[in-house]
Amino acid sequence: MQTPSVAILGATGLVGRTMAKILEERDFPVGELRPLASARSAGTTMHFRGREFTIQEATPDAFRGVDLVLSSAGASVSRALLPAAAAHGAVSIDNTSAFRMEPDIPLVVPEVNPHRISEYGERRIIANPNCSTIQLVVALKPLHEAFGVKRVITSTYQSVSGAGQAAVDELRRTTGDVLAGGSGETDVFPSTIAFNAVPHIDVFMPDDDTREEWKMRVETKKIMEAEIPLHATCVRVPVLEAHSEAVWVETERPVSPREARGLWASSPGLAVVDEPATGRYPTALDAAGRDEVLVGRVRVDPTIENGLAFWVVADNLRKGAALNAIQIAERLVS
Amino acid sequence: MQTPSVAILGATGLVGRTMAKILEERDFPVGELRPLASARSAGTTMHFRGREFTIQEATPDAFRGVDLVLSSAGASVSRALLPAAAAHGAVSIDNTSAFRMEPDIPLVVPEVNPHRISEYGERRIIANPNCSTIQLVVALKPLHEAFGVKRVITSTYQSVSGAGQAAVDELRRTTGDVLAGGSGETDVFPSTIAFNAVPHIDVFMPDDDTREEWKMRVETKKIMEAEIPLHATCVRVPVLEAHSEAVWVETERPVSPREARGLWASSPGLAVVDEPATGRYPTALDAAGRDEVLVGRVRVDPTIENGLAFWVVADNLRKGAALNAIQIAERLVS
Repeated sequence: MQTPSVAILGATGLVGRTMAKILEERDFPVGELRPLASARSAGTTMHFRGREFTIQEATPDAFRGVDLVLSSAGASVSRALLPAAAAHGAVSIDNTSAFRMEPDIPLVVPEVNPHRISEYGERRIIANPNCSTIQLVVALKPLHEAFGVKRVITSTYQSVSGAGQAAVDELRRTTGDVLAGGSGETDVFPSTIAFNAVPHIDVFMPDDDTREEWKMRVETKKIMEAEIPLHATCVRVPVLEAHSEAVWVETERPVSPREARGLWASSPGLAVVDEPATGRYPTALDAAGRDEVLVGRVRVDPTIENGLAFWVVADNLRKGAALNAIQIAERLVS
Repeated sequence: MQTPSVAILGATGLVGRTMAKILEERDFPVGELRPLASARSAGTTMHFRGREFTIQEATPDAFRGVDLVLSSAGASVSRALLPAAAAHGAVSIDNTSAFRMEPDIPLVVPEVNPHRISEYGERRIIANPNCSTIQLVVALKPLHEAFGVKRVITSTYQSVSGAGQAAVDELRRTTGDVLAGGSGETDVFPSTIAFNAVPHIDVFMPDDDTREEWKMRVETKKIMEAEIPLHATCVRVPVLEAHSEAVWVETERPVSPREARGLWASSPGLAVVDEPATGRYPTALDAAGRDEVLVGRVRVDPTIENGLAFWVVADNLRKGAALNAIQIAERLVS
């Protein structure tokens, strides 16, 4: 696969548009581009590398002649269509939750487990992890290799863009509504998101964790290939773009904040922003539009042996979704 | 002290105004009301129980004849004026950080350590804890008594009202600015707060924790009268009122979520809102204007023996500040 024909499945969505933008930015070798979406969006147009493309309806036959699918149209669409894409010989990088936990589907973050990329096998699908997991494992991986991570606790501050364009529009609309004296009631979110913090992302599971919290736990284990106990509380906050995470880890061997910063500064995909003396730390606004996972607020957690606390921020549409998928694709074409 | 003359120090601030409102709501016995503020605000008026009061300048002599001071005008004002109030025979309940950690000053949450209220001694000052600490210890106290809390990890989602009226105005103004295409730059906060999450409240300490994080640690120990190791990451979010906290505890004896919910439901000052099946959990919007500390999202943390995770939300102006102070005052006049 050297100059693949590329289908973007879900081309009109937030992640799909970010995928097209990143293909341009990174000069990814694209033979033919085939933007696909639902029948509703078919016939509309998009621009790519100065040319106008017409969105086609995503049907099983739309993958004929396609080598690579960048998929982000929802789990049910992926389940319905990616087997057809595989039957046409395409390899799919799927940004939905449809296949992530299936044992014969690789779940990949290139900084963590790139060796799995080639293992897409007959199903010809590589899964892109959930946004909140990706940025966490990019930070955990070097720490685990050097010091052994024994346990992870994390609470998230997740932006609305993880829920799509309608969610972004909704936050803007309902926030304006509240500023004008309205109640800001939401249609898209399970609870009002304007000026609120909502500990409910995805559905609730039998153990009362949400599915988003479950994803962080099981995806981290699969990607890291390590039985690292992890517990998460996932919270939606009124942020437009980029997820933040407060993280506590216990390590097998002692690690100082200075050692951790040095390790992260020299690890792929990470940038350290951590100068308390000058008030520098990463925030969502800093991470929006950037490719790196930003780490800061690194401190000793003195309440436990070998405890370390830190703060991880990344653009959930880029590293948390489109960029990670295209980094996987780059390894397929190289 | 049965029908005290009451001074509100900082009467024009967010907390001061909430104090006056709660005195009215709870039918607190007020002989004379004396609203005090800086020279800048002196001469303006406020209403209390249907009467108009003129704000007087807060000077040492302004406390002559006052029995009870409800103080919330900043730590330096408290340091400068509360000794004078004591010299005039008044007892002060101080909502600032000025005296909280002094050994001979009681630091009180009535649901937790009411027996300390009478110990104000010659200094005649009772300290009101920090907002983020109060709601946490209300939830920790029954858990600690029944099951023994061994360690606490918490990350906060703190509203801007904790930083005063200027901060509330600033969030509204800068949010409108961003919605109109502006950058939302802030004067009041250390980083832009509109559509952001900022892990920086109060100043940084030598160990790179913020002073807000340090307060949660040391105040919790003092109020609980227990050496409970606690580590916090404190984050300001674009919420107008009420703080939320993700909390993880390890207990000496096993506690199920059902037992914890039952305990909290029957403990003073708490309400349990935790029905995952119907998507019910506490949020900041639910807590704003309410007196109770709301607890929900109670789950087992299976990553450690006797681990429990939960979510605590309270109105930072009420239970986190004005209400807690007036609950202390109620015990002084009873």
